Amino acid sequence: MEIDASQECAGGITAAQGFTAGGLYCGIRRAKKDIAIVRSAKPAVVAGVFTLNKVVAAPLLVDKIQLKNSDVCSALVINSGNANACTGEQGMKDAWAMVDTTAEALHLPREQVLVSSTGVIGQYLPMENITKGIQDLSTKLSVSGHNDAAEAIMTTDIFSKECAMRFPLGSSVITIGGMAKGSGMIAPNMATMLAFVTTDAVIAPSALQSALRVANNHSFNRVTVDGDMSTNDMVLVLANGYAKNEEIKENTAAFQQFLAALEYVLIKLAKMIARDGEGATKFIEIIVSGAHTEDEAVQAARSVANSNLVKTALHGADANWGRILCAVGYSGIDFNPDQTEISLNDLPVLRKNYEIVLDEEKAKATLSLENITVAIYLNQGSAEARFWTCDLTKEYIHINASYRT
Amino acid sequence: MEIDASQECAGGITAAQGFTAGGLYCGIRRAKKDIAIVRSAKPAVVAGVFTLNKVVAAPLLVDKIQLKNSDVCSALVINSGNANACTGEQGMKDAWAMVDTTAEALHLPREQVLVSSTGVIGQYLPMENITKGIQDLSTKLSVSGHNDAAEAIMTTDIFSKECAMRFPLGSSVITIGGMAKGSGMIAPNMATMLAFVTTDAVIAPSALQSALRVANNHSFNRVTVDGDMSTNDMVLVLANGYAKNEEIKENTAAFQQFLAALEYVLIKLAKMIARDGEGATKFIEIIVSGAHTEDEAVQAARSVANSNLVKTALHGADANWGRILCAVGYSGIDFNPDQTEISLNDLPVLRKNYEIVLDEEKAKATLSLENITVAIYLNQGSAEARFWTCDLTKEYIHINASYRT
Repeated sequence: MEIDASQECAGGITAAQGFTAGGLYCGIRRAKKDIAIVRSAKPAVVAGVFTLNKVVAAPLLVDKIQLKNSDVCSALVINSGNANACTGEQGMKDAWAMVDTTAEALHLPREQVLVSSTGVIGQYLPMENITKGIQDLSTKLSVSGHNDAAEAIMTTDIFSKECAMRFPLGSSVITIGGMAKGSGMIAPNMATMLAFVTTDAVIAPSALQSALRVANNHSFNRVTVDGDMSTNDMVLVLANGYAKNEEIKENTAAFQQFLAALEYVLIKLAKMIARDGEGATKFIEIIVSGAHTEDEAVQAARSVANSNLVKTALHGADANWGRILCAVGYSGIDFNPDQTEISLNDLPVLRKNYEIVLDEEKAKATLSLENITVAIYLNQGSAEARFWTCDLTKEYIHINASYRT
Repeated sequence: MEIDASQECAGGITAAQGFTAGGLYCGIRRAKKDIAIVRSAKPAVVAGVFTLNKVVAAPLLVDKIQLKNSDVCSALVINSGNANACTGEQGMKDAWAMVDTTAEALHLPREQVLVSSTGVIGQYLPMENITKGIQDLSTKLSVSGHNDAAEAIMTTDIFSKECAMRFPLGSSVITIGGMAKGSGMIAPNMATMLAFVTTDAVIAPSALQSALRVANNHSFNRVTVDGDMSTNDMVLVLANGYAKNEEIKENTAAFQQFLAALEYVLIKLAKMIARDGEGATKFIEIIVSGAHTEDEAVQAARSVANSNLVKTALHGADANWGRILCAVGYSGIDFNPDQTEISLNDLPVLRKNYEIVLDEEKAKATLSLENITVAIYLNQGSAEARFWTCDLTKEYIHINASYRT
């Protein structure tokens, strides 16, 4: 069975059976919803991946302890506006207090609550507001609360990011739904981005972790906004088993199907993150094909996606293929520049042996669209990879020259 | 003997004895001087370092052949406005034609001429204009032509970059002078930057190459504007022996002195390149100290210097130390974040154990200056490294969204 867009459904993080959610404003930093809770009606198998940054925010340290002590999770509590990063001992106390307040309010064992934060670094959380916010919110969770939750985790995001899909598995129907926040500081190996996914599948814990690792590599690790990697990134998946399917185990057809669906949801969220990069006006997909290996294709695509020069050129609708080829040139992969071909939105601009076939007028027209595909064909093998990013604009500078103050 | 600013002298690329230069407008692309020649009155020992980009421009390919065939060089010809990169066979013919025209006009053997180009990628040189420009210019070289030469190699540079210094060596006096162009696409391992240095020292070819390699690592390889590495970078040093000193050989005190002076000139030029980064309003020096090794210090400093988030924050005079620490965190070095201390222009903002000592008012004031020093103390060893960059501004976007067209 192929996974495709026809299987998408509404409901985001509460699309799967047995999940409720909500979000509200508790007064952390700005006048926007800033605290979210996701609840599973019964303990869910949980898997997670975390930032590789050496500077790790307090909530991630807490979650890593929680995941060691418990295979299951019943609730997530997430705040925006403050990352609770670089906050030392006080930060750890505050993260634990968020866990404890949520556990009490929802009558859950402490070890079944995970916590997440995003926002400014190096400031203490306003715990009074947060505590009250959690208590209020815990009485208001519902299956229609997914929008509010998705809004509450936004920082400089312009739009909230949700996706869900439903597919048959044997005689059961599985739903996978999720929400994400991104915007600035997004880079390979997941810079500031958070994603939370729920599913009603019955799945072995190790299979869930494997599926997440693979799907994450093909989605969030292939998005970049500015090359910065944050202290707070995490992706969590909860599987509560409400779908009552036969347990999904690794190395089975059912696992492959679950993985494909999970990848679909994560890639969709990842693309939304790229499209909503800080200050972005264009969504850019880089496709490197004809590479020796997938790793080399990824490496080349990442280099192009991270090039400020490429991203400003595309912002200006300038078919500056030289900058694209140049970024492949310093990516570190082994390739032959004069065998390389480049197209922009299917319009060929460079053929082998530096034959320039660029039609400036057509290029200007197609690069003025909101969606741009940069296709780079290396002519040396059969491996391919895709990478997603956005253009670099004056608005990015505006946002980031004044984010904290 | 210490090398210091009191030893600087005027004259740039023609400060050393036996060198003349010039620059004029020949009509390559924009109404600015666009062709330069540097001439040595007798064949000079030559050393060079070149871009690591896999996409290598035609003039570099030509020069590598020239340097294989000849240990000496008598003239450099350099054009701006067009990089002669990604131009295939035609590009190679054109680069050789620049060499031949220069050799003929100056009555030199072909193998004693090196060529260099900078500017837009993927367009053929207007050879008729260039040939005429070289012929005109070759009759106008003089010791006062260094300014014109330095201007002629500029692309989007705002100011020309020259530096020279003079120091005694034994009973001789040695002069080292140079010029550079930078601006966009500057990154570690020398992205689009060109530097040309002349000296009247008598020095063994291998010693000159060693000195250049070391000095280049401590200067141009520690500058970044936007992380892009170009197809055209090169640094060339010519030593014509007019100073009549005892020949400088490796592993001698004289070599150390020569190296220190060369480093001084290259670092000064490198800092000018950072200060004149495209759209820059501030010069930023990153100092990482207390590292285990110099390599780790460089790695951490480079990561901070390449962070768009750090550079936009400093543009906005925002003491966002969290982004600085975060960039060290993803640099890949091993360190303990809670032992790290950060100062901005000598104003401490972060002490050990995340003790935040930031005085917002003072920080705003000092970060509003044009020169900013970001000092990061890792508290784990005694190695140190410096890295230079500039802020990231809306003007950078403006320049690069419309550079080519």
